[in-house]
Amino acid sequence: MSGGIARTSATGGRMLPALLEWSSSLSLDRQLVREDVLGSAAHITMLARQGLVATDDARDLRVELLVLYREASEGKLALADGEEDVHMAVEAELGRRLGAVAGKLHTARSRNDQVALDLRLHVRDQAAQALREVAALIHYLADRAPGEMDILLPAYTHRQRAQPISAAFQVCAWATQLARAAEVVDFALERVDVSPLGSGACTGTSLPIDRELVARLLGFPAVTKNALDTVGDRDFALDWTWAAARVLLALGKVAADLVDMSTSEFGMVRLDGEIAAGSSMMPQKKNPDIFELVRGKTARGIGNVTALLTLVKGLPSGYNRDQQEDRQTVLETAPLLRGTVAAMMAALPHAHFVSGEKALAEGFTQATDLAEALVRRGVPFREAYKQVGQLVRDALDQGKTLAQIESDPALDPRAAVAAKESTGGTGPSSVKAQIQALKQTADRLIARADRVPSFDALVERIMAEAL
Amino acid sequence: MSGGIARTSATGGRMLPALLEWSSSLSLDRQLVREDVLGSAAHITMLARQGLVATDDARDLRVELLVLYREASEGKLALADGEEDVHMAVEAELGRRLGAVAGKLHTARSRNDQVALDLRLHVRDQAAQALREVAALIHYLADRAPGEMDILLPAYTHRQRAQPISAAFQVCAWATQLARAAEVVDFALERVDVSPLGSGACTGTSLPIDRELVARLLGFPAVTKNALDTVGDRDFALDWTWAAARVLLALGKVAADLVDMSTSEFGMVRLDGEIAAGSSMMPQKKNPDIFELVRGKTARGIGNVTALLTLVKGLPSGYNRDQQEDRQTVLETAPLLRGTVAAMMAALPHAHFVSGEKALAEGFTQATDLAEALVRRGVPFREAYKQVGQLVRDALDQGKTLAQIESDPALDPRAAVAAKESTGGTGPSSVKAQIQALKQTADRLIARADRVPSFDALVERIMAEAL
Amino acid sequence: MSGGIARTSATGGRMLPALLEWSSSLSLDRQLVREDVLGSAAHITMLARQGLVATDDARDLRVELLVLYREASEGKLALADGEEDVHMAVEAELGRRLGAVAGKLHTARSRNDQVALDLRLHVRDQAAQALREVAALIHYLADRAPGEMDILLPAYTHRQRAQPISAAFQVCAWATQLARAAEVVDFALERVDVSPLGSGACTGTSLPIDRELVARLLGFPAVTKNALDTVGDRDFALDWTWAAARVLLALGKVAADLVDMSTSEFGMVRLDGEIAAGSSMMPQKKNPDIFELVRGKTARGIGNVTALLTLVKGLPSGYNRDQQEDRQTVLETAPLLRGTVAAMMAALPHAHFVSGEKALAEGFTQATDLAEALVRRGVPFREAYKQVGQLVRDALDQGKTLAQIESDPALDPRAAVAAKESTGGTGPSSVKAQIQALKQTADRLIARADRVPSFDALVERIMAEAL
Amino acid sequence: MSGGIARTSATGGRMLPALLEWSSSLSLDRQLVREDVLGSAAHITMLARQGLVATDDARDLRVELLVLYREASEGKLALADGEEDVHMAVEAELGRRLGAVAGKLHTARSRNDQVALDLRLHVRDQAAQALREVAALIHYLADRAPGEMDILLPAYTHRQRAQPISAAFQVCAWATQLARAAEVVDFALERVDVSPLGSGACTGTSLPIDRELVARLLGFPAVTKNALDTVGDRDFALDWTWAAARVLLALGKVAADLVDMSTSEFGMVRLDGEIAAGSSMMPQKKNPDIFELVRGKTARGIGNVTALLTLVKGLPSGYNRDQQEDRQTVLETAPLLRGTVAAMMAALPHAHFVSGEKALAEGFTQATDLAEALVRRGVPFREAYKQVGQLVRDALDQGKTLAQIESDPALDPRAAVAAKESTGGTGPSSVKAQIQALKQTADRLIARADRVPSFDALVERIMAEAL
Repeated sequence: MSGGIARTSATGGRMLPALLEWSSSLSLDRQLVREDVLGSAAHITMLARQGLVATDDARDLRVELLVLYREASEGKLALADGEEDVHMAVEAELGRRLGAVAGKLHTARSRNDQVALDLRLHVRDQAAQALREVAALIHYLADRAPGEMDILLPAYTHRQRAQPISAAFQVCAWATQLARAAEVVDFALERVDVSPLGSGACTGTSLPIDRELVARLLGFPAVTKNALDTVGDRDFALDWTWAAARVLLALGKVAADLVDMSTSEFGMVRLDGEIAAGSSMMPQKKNPDIFELVRGKTARGIGNVTALLTLVKGLPSGYNRDQQEDRQTVLETAPLLRGTVAAMMAALPHAHFVSGEKALAEGFTQATDLAEALVRRGVPFREAYKQVGQLVRDALDQGKTLAQIESDPALDPRAAVAAKESTGGTGPSSVKAQIQALKQTADRLIARADRVPSFDALVERIMAEAL
Repeated sequence: MSGGIARTSATGGRMLPALLEWSSSLSLDRQLVREDVLGSAAHITMLARQGLVATDDARDLRVELLVLYREASEGKLALADGEEDVHMAVEAELGRRLGAVAGKLHTARSRNDQVALDLRLHVRDQAAQALREVAALIHYLADRAPGEMDILLPAYTHRQRAQPISAAFQVCAWATQLARAAEVVDFALERVDVSPLGSGACTGTSLPIDRELVARLLGFPAVTKNALDTVGDRDFALDWTWAAARVLLALGKVAADLVDMSTSEFGMVRLDGEIAAGSSMMPQKKNPDIFELVRGKTARGIGNVTALLTLVKGLPSGYNRDQQEDRQTVLETAPLLRGTVAAMMAALPHAHFVSGEKALAEGFTQATDLAEALVRRGVPFREAYKQVGQLVRDALDQGKTLAQIESDPALDPRAAVAAKESTGGTGPSSVKAQIQALKQTADRLIARADRVPSFDALVERIMAEAL
Repeated sequence: MSGGIARTSATGGRMLPALLEWSSSLSLDRQLVREDVLGSAAHITMLARQGLVATDDARDLRVELLVLYREASEGKLALADGEEDVHMAVEAELGRRLGAVAGKLHTARSRNDQVALDLRLHVRDQAAQALREVAALIHYLADRAPGEMDILLPAYTHRQRAQPISAAFQVCAWATQLARAAEVVDFALERVDVSPLGSGACTGTSLPIDRELVARLLGFPAVTKNALDTVGDRDFALDWTWAAARVLLALGKVAADLVDMSTSEFGMVRLDGEIAAGSSMMPQKKNPDIFELVRGKTARGIGNVTALLTLVKGLPSGYNRDQQEDRQTVLETAPLLRGTVAAMMAALPHAHFVSGEKALAEGFTQATDLAEALVRRGVPFREAYKQVGQLVRDALDQGKTLAQIESDPALDPRAAVAAKESTGGTGPSSVKAQIQALKQTADRLIARADRVPSFDALVERIMAEAL
Repeated sequence: MSGGIARTSATGGRMLPALLEWSSSLSLDRQLVREDVLGSAAHITMLARQGLVATDDARDLRVELLVLYREASEGKLALADGEEDVHMAVEAELGRRLGAVAGKLHTARSRNDQVALDLRLHVRDQAAQALREVAALIHYLADRAPGEMDILLPAYTHRQRAQPISAAFQVCAWATQLARAAEVVDFALERVDVSPLGSGACTGTSLPIDRELVARLLGFPAVTKNALDTVGDRDFALDWTWAAARVLLALGKVAADLVDMSTSEFGMVRLDGEIAAGSSMMPQKKNPDIFELVRGKTARGIGNVTALLTLVKGLPSGYNRDQQEDRQTVLETAPLLRGTVAAMMAALPHAHFVSGEKALAEGFTQATDLAEALVRRGVPFREAYKQVGQLVRDALDQGKTLAQIESDPALDPRAAVAAKESTGGTGPSSVKAQIQALKQTADRLIARADRVPSFDALVERIMAEAL
């Protein structure tokens, strides 16, 4: 029995070689080899337990599958080219090692449910790791914020200076946005965590399989509910690319802020040389390349969402080969997302806020604060606004700042920030509460990610199961 | 005080009229007038309770706001043109009715948090209604399935007949897919359900407001956590357009199936004249226009997701006027989604399955079943496959069907379907369990939707709150 | 004969009213009524000339169609609701006015080629007008540039000051980008300019029609080549939304520059109150709302491209009702695009460059210029770079500018700009050549747009044709 | 001088290694090495001719660059890792081979115009090749059509049988659609064919370069017009991905037709085993995997367009590092597009039409033909339609076909097809004219592609230029 069998079974051995090569997904899905052999190890365990495969055969297969797993983990497994996909390539390799018994793996299984399983195992694993890493980034931001309570900056609306804030408040804004994106990863993780195996080609099987056992061995809390739906379903891939796009969008917005803030003009952030690019002739230049690239990564994330939506649009029920085109999108999502998170994690400690008090003094940003102070002292709201508007006009006429023509404690940016203690405001107590909440969110996300068993843990669980 | 004040306050009264008109969102967001006055009614209640506005003024304003609400509900409220947005238009209208006191509404509030509130109230309300309607569609499918247990059809992979199924199983596949899409609406609903009011322009306020009270009056279980993040946040809009796109995608795939199935060629579904288009000259034609349009609606749903993602990509922290461009996308999502759901609800009862037993007899679709039957009888798996493959080849050579050259109960499509009782399979017990699970899911979704208070209920709640 | 006939002919009169209403495109395509009656006037002229309709009938119909055209142009034509689309509504209206003869219009025509015609007439007309308006914007930029030759600004790479340029050069960069986008409109215009009429439902006709005559009457230089392709073809709509997206992208980038440049921080552009939004309390604020909105409009343009691509993806040959979903996208493209162009045309004269010489003095932006000057004086290239790099380092160490520690004419930003006379450079002669080229491009585009006959001109052409 | 210099010059040698690796584009753009060295060879030639570099140095560099070109062409050039991009890697390699003289290449050039050049050379070359291949596919279709004139099929509207056509007409519809997509490639090719070199970092240069000479050596008919625009311009990449998406969309629609047509149900196309996938147990199955994959490829094409649009949206003037994210999209476009074209070219000869006369007999598809025949015989149009409508109704009532209850030559599908000789119709003379026009179009496209010099031809041209 040779690799040739795999090809035969899929194509009758007659497909033109150039088309076979063009249509093969092996170049991409050999990345899924660990997922594939894990799934097979669980499957063969179940087959033996249900009496569908002899115990000895199952033992031989399971042992060899886990040898393949180890080899793949160590980068030592070389799957031969020429197969249509990773499932065929693994079966062919098993055939080379064990002979005809390899074919038993195919009992009560189809490549349609098998590929769904491999993809789900991959997405679940990567989503869990990404979730943990995003949560770590939220922790990092929450941890640095307390040290930046006293650095004042202008907040902007319409790119115009609006009101004074603390840098800590800005950092919390970033982390809050990121936490919201992380919840989408959490949602994707929840939804991918269902076992498709046992759906067969599209209708289930008449053999006495035990889908729940396979699910338990692979750490899935549930099995999918309708076989026809299952083999055509790529919703989990949509969830995953969407979650990645949302996190990238959030990171891209943080990066966009940093690109602006680190200009000479805004001067609100100083970048260390460790994360900036320059030139030998212009050593003063600190180009924010890392943040520009992070901002740019959003685009690929969005493109991937569009690609996947378009792919599945209008497809009929059941499995269609079009679905193979999910592979590139799904497989590039984890490195895209996790690479960008890691880059931010490495770069952010090298971006330092610079006090914006000069800009605050110039910018009339305390107008609202002064008006609110008047209201607090009993001036009717509309009257307060009118008085402040007039004051600003006077200052403009005289070419002065507000503080230069009016002496009021509310005009001190520090006091203005300190007074904004409404929930979610920039006041220090409010910001402290935000920091606390962010840490709790991050901890919760990490705990969620930790509930996903690692591949190595699955190996142990499967091997521990009696045959 | 007149409408002019509103314009003044926003633009200093100097913007070129043509640009003021082009930049105004009023033509779109006058759809949000009920949301706007509800939010204001809650806000003025809180201001009075916190002593920021005199009780009598607050009472006058609250009463008049609810008059506006009633007028808007009855389609009798005509907001004047010429304002920049619905908030300004409402304030101008209040000014015309009540005079200067209208200006007090603006205390401790900004249009930045106000528009976020209006949009969130809108999305929450529409998402709840959409969720209820999708759940009703799932119920409809679950209810019709039992009557279609005995209609057999081929299931397809690669558009080729693969295995026999019951029509009930097909219907469950559709409903399962739809239920998964509905969960995305549920997620969007969960996330939009947070009150942004009290975030001010971008930093909160120094006035002693009570954000939690406003939230309670408007039925929000929580308030947003960081004001700078809040005013720039349109994640809830992304969640909503995404959820809509997912449901449209699912409906579009059901529709695609029905377009195919109702061709003369497939002949698996017969459409009543009530949902088909034809021509006077070709009365036999029953064009599946409704299902083609449903399939086409997916495209707008996907386009809207892309539009919104692109809009927010790269925007800096804080409020940017670009965000106004969310309006068209957000406001067209509910009619797009709910209209399509309603069309499917109206059309599906007029689509009837036609037995596909002839196609099943011709199509060798029972090959797998026969092989599995042999395995159940003790033939080794590989041997079974080999025997069946040879049998199929023989039948092809003789130009006969499998049943014509081999007599085996497993070749009866009905028996084949009956035997697939693995979880999620097409066997009748399995399908019954699926139907049961679908009903439970639909009930859960309806209960979730019902937890969202209607606008009318909010009116009562607000009016009941002491000033 | 009444409007009811139209409905009958399309749906057999049996479709559920709610579905008929949901599926009707009339609410949108009543915007196409002038296109529709023009097409019919040309068609009936041809039918008469080919002897397919009696001359008297044709005359009555043609006259009445042009009455409808005039009424529609004056906003006085009220088409009844309840029809499936504008073609049916027009036919019903004709029926009410002329009786049974109205039905003759349908000879040798199908709604499939008729809707293609209406859409093509619409897109051609709007694309020509948009092209003319974009060309006018290029002219505006080319005309203002000479007056801005002496205003110096820093050019940026990575958002960091890089080298000095003239404001005129920046303006030419914008115009060049815009001209490139306009060429895409030109391409779309070229491709839409083909008559589909006479393709019938999908195969042509056996009646002796003259497609070329209809094309000539409607100003189309050619007719489509394959009827089956024609009725399913929406490539011209893709071309059009794509062209619009490209222009919006270009305008959005100009707007993004202006939003940044008009910040207090960059201070490179001053906005007049006529285009800025502010607040009564903060009269100093000049929010660049118009430019933010322009930047935001890009998103809709991109969303529309995605919507249309997704719509047609995977559709089978021939007409499919899904295609009706092109309507919203196509019809909103012209106001989206032309409105944005008009907003820019109105706003740009109110955006004034402010000299950036202070920024240039601080920013070491002349380092490259100094190095190039040394090279021109014979210093080997690498040596020159080394010397300048050292000089910058020295200046940084001493906290001084380059000009403060080295006296070299090349350090004068004005000289630096003047010296960059390579083709496409910022030197004044180079910029003059750019201005000249831009004007020629704009003139060419206007001439192209002018070759498209207006609807009114088509009326005259058709009426002048003998029956 | 070592590779280290390159890194120093870009990043000051201080960037964190992990970030340097993450931000490097070398893994992708090493695919552009031939483009890079060709551009440099042209550049050094110009520098020598303008006296900016000594002739001997230029000769050494040019020779070595072309050695690198040959090595790269033969797959023997191994660029070291660790550089920021291909330009740096090539310069470092030259440094290793030639020493300090390598640095002279950098005279009057920036990586900003260099990367634009490399990308343009790549896109031009690939677009030309793709255009040639698409044209060949059009030729193939045009060539096979005459042999399929006598095979009759139903054409479909709304997926319902509408009218009889010849298979040749269907093939011409596909080719016409494809030719229209190919024109978009032609447009992209026209626009990319402009030399950016000499734009410097963003403003041109004060050195006496000759941009036109470089352009001539590289076969560009023109140079870009504004340096600031040039370095930020990725419009050519948008043109290219758009063109690819359009061709993929067209191929995807052909593929969608073939997937449907090759179902057992439609039975209009028979696939050879050479292009179909099946299974050993179900040898009768001929899954149209190739066409499903082609249909799926559309999705990636569309996703890439979205990714690129999103990437450039909102970027400021000048070069931004975000632009590096164009690389994946641009570089994957050629293999995506050309691979799919090649797959279609290989697969189409194995898809054979099967006569659809049985379907035509059953389907009342000649109703229109009969009505038109009556009109041709003098029956008034409306009367004709009425008569035919009644006839169809009668046939339906009697459970018969039209031909069974009425004897009319027009009811012969062959006669019906033959009569449709309007321009673009399915009649044989009309189809012959279509075939002729398609061949002319294909020839014109090939001639256009042939005007683009190959890289090897550029080598000769550059070497032939005196220094």
